[in-house]
Amino acid sequence: MSNCLVAQSGGPTSVINATIAGIVKANQLNPLYEHVYGGLNGVEGILNERFVDLTDMSEEENRILQQTPSSALGSCRYKLKRDNVKDFEKLIRIMEKYDISTVFYTGGNDSMDTVTALSEYAEAQGITGRRFIGCPKTIDNDLMHTDHCPGYGSAAKYIAATTLQTWLDLNVYTRQEVLIVETMGRDAGWLAASACLSGVVDILIIPEAPFDKDEFLKLVRKFIRQKNKCVVVVSEGARYADGTYISSSETKNDGFGHATLGGAAHTLKEMVLESGVSSRCRVQDLSYAQRCHAGDLSLTDMTESFRLGMSAHMHSADPAFTGRMVALKRREGEAYEVEYITIPAGEAANYVRNFPAEWILPDYQGVTEEALAYMRPLIQGKPDLILENGLPAYVKPYYMR
Amino acid sequence: MSNCLVAQSGGPTSVINATIAGIVKANQLNPLYEHVYGGLNGVEGILNERFVDLTDMSEEENRILQQTPSSALGSCRYKLKRDNVKDFEKLIRIMEKYDISTVFYTGGNDSMDTVTALSEYAEAQGITGRRFIGCPKTIDNDLMHTDHCPGYGSAAKYIAATTLQTWLDLNVYTRQEVLIVETMGRDAGWLAASACLSGVVDILIIPEAPFDKDEFLKLVRKFIRQKNKCVVVVSEGARYADGTYISSSETKNDGFGHATLGGAAHTLKEMVLESGVSSRCRVQDLSYAQRCHAGDLSLTDMTESFRLGMSAHMHSADPAFTGRMVALKRREGEAYEVEYITIPAGEAANYVRNFPAEWILPDYQGVTEEALAYMRPLIQGKPDLILENGLPAYVKPYYMR
Repeated sequence: MSNCLVAQSGGPTSVINATIAGIVKANQLNPLYEHVYGGLNGVEGILNERFVDLTDMSEEENRILQQTPSSALGSCRYKLKRDNVKDFEKLIRIMEKYDISTVFYTGGNDSMDTVTALSEYAEAQGITGRRFIGCPKTIDNDLMHTDHCPGYGSAAKYIAATTLQTWLDLNVYTRQEVLIVETMGRDAGWLAASACLSGVVDILIIPEAPFDKDEFLKLVRKFIRQKNKCVVVVSEGARYADGTYISSSETKNDGFGHATLGGAAHTLKEMVLESGVSSRCRVQDLSYAQRCHAGDLSLTDMTESFRLGMSAHMHSADPAFTGRMVALKRREGEAYEVEYITIPAGEAANYVRNFPAEWILPDYQGVTEEALAYMRPLIQGKPDLILENGLPAYVKPYYMR
Repeated sequence: MSNCLVAQSGGPTSVINATIAGIVKANQLNPLYEHVYGGLNGVEGILNERFVDLTDMSEEENRILQQTPSSALGSCRYKLKRDNVKDFEKLIRIMEKYDISTVFYTGGNDSMDTVTALSEYAEAQGITGRRFIGCPKTIDNDLMHTDHCPGYGSAAKYIAATTLQTWLDLNVYTRQEVLIVETMGRDAGWLAASACLSGVVDILIIPEAPFDKDEFLKLVRKFIRQKNKCVVVVSEGARYADGTYISSSETKNDGFGHATLGGAAHTLKEMVLESGVSSRCRVQDLSYAQRCHAGDLSLTDMTESFRLGMSAHMHSADPAFTGRMVALKRREGEAYEVEYITIPAGEAANYVRNFPAEWILPDYQGVTEEALAYMRPLIQGKPDLILENGLPAYVKPYYMR
């Protein structure tokens, strides 16, 4: 019996570990592999043979792993470039050495590209019995051909809850004040849009709807006149029609050619105060907490992430199953239900799935009822978290052991 | 039978409404008053006779009110100045008009001063049958003569959980990086100190321990050398030995003569990047979410806030009970238990209870085990929240009805 390897890449989410827990549990119930290895820090660690053995994980650790946010196996930003044959050769040698037939790789766009590149390389080289399977995860929800991405529901829930709560906080005083909530979302507005689930967003600014400063200030003035308050939610990647980001700190990049953003809310705050449309303006920058805050886990999201791992494990019984990603398909009908389908990983890779134009209301008014109906099921339910000293119990990251 | 009035003042907390729910419930069980009125927006609304009738609140609304963050009756920053006899006279006239014998006022230092001033005024004027009772609430935990303040436990829990979660997120990459978490706390370090419950804080900077830039950078360098990471937690009110705040935005004030702060973390980030001790530095500014995030409510905190309201109602049966605040006293012994005592509100007012010097470890290393033992019971337990569409259900603020 051969072995399999699971690894994580890209930005973490609150439920990314549930997929790993699902793969481990599936193999305990239906042992396709002798060992389930965890590769530490994604491709980076795999190339350095940094493995842990997850095969016999206890039921308790499995449950706690599911509720532990942030890649417990560690992540990396190292990209397997298609022309770097040396890395590819080394990886195959390592798989042979450890008798690893299957690599499960959880990640976003870039990771699905890695899965595709490795499968294509193996095929081109006539290498058999080495398979690469993608498991999607990203709070950005911007992968193609999947109804949504595990991780998005929990982030959306945190964003909606925090928007609602900070709106309550904003309103306790009668004074004039603007609240600006900033979410992640470099290219797609899914995260910022989820704030609309709170029902209290006055102005929504996402990358898909070009920013117009005059229009923005006019709207803030309108809401301040109406009710002395205004709630703005903005994506870090919000931009002008010419593509310039509204945040000022767009100069750096993260090594993948992505701009590292942040500061959109503070830029808007400056505009509000300088123009005088409001005398007070507060900022709630959700920052990293939105992708790891596990007090607000969506049970739906956590369960789907776990089952997606189980599904990937099951599909891997097929020796021809490689270069594919397990995706979520929403069933037709009144009640929310998903099925787990598979698609070529290359179809999900390197394309950004934008927030649909037809779901965006004009004049930065937020999103349509259809959009809310899409998002609402994803934030439902709360897991019965295991606590330790009053805080949620988390597994110690495997890369720290 | 006369009536009573409850009102809220100062900054909100996640459990401030549980005290109101406790007063209302106590009066349903033991009707000392014909009506329990809620005064909207604190003294400001009371002086304008903006009341709601809370007497017959349903059990369901009572439960949801307990889990609703931020003053549901609204708050104010209006201070009843001791020399403003007109306001005092007006308030007494309004109490007479509505046959209000007792005012319950929830708030922090300033509110306890208001309770004291009103009681003293009534006594000096020979006015009988008008009583003023203080109920403490503040996330700052800086009131004297109470073991702790309702609201602190839930804020501490959110801060500790978010520190732990963002630390997990920080560590998934192998790269060098500093995380700086900023908490509220203008004058006292209780909130920042609670981050130490996470067990992952490397450097803690609170107002009680003067900030030294060279020492700080030396420490960051040490941790970066040791483990490529460093977690810093800083109070917004952290300051140099000469009293200058480390944040740059200390020029404004909130009308009470308090500086409005914020930006300490960004100032530290600048220091880290400019000095070159780390090439990457991220900020998590908890901002307003720390006083209204109700996904992390501490059941202990919520229960104590509710019972404190019930206790205040019970004490008000005594016609001589005025100018006093209900406080929490921790019982001696292994198991955590509190009793509800009463103290003169004036003793709690206008003094800041600092984080004890003997609980601060040298070299910004955090807090002692004794401090953790003090804080730990306050964050225990999670309420079984009532959900609505996947988000916690909240009452519609009374000032919006």
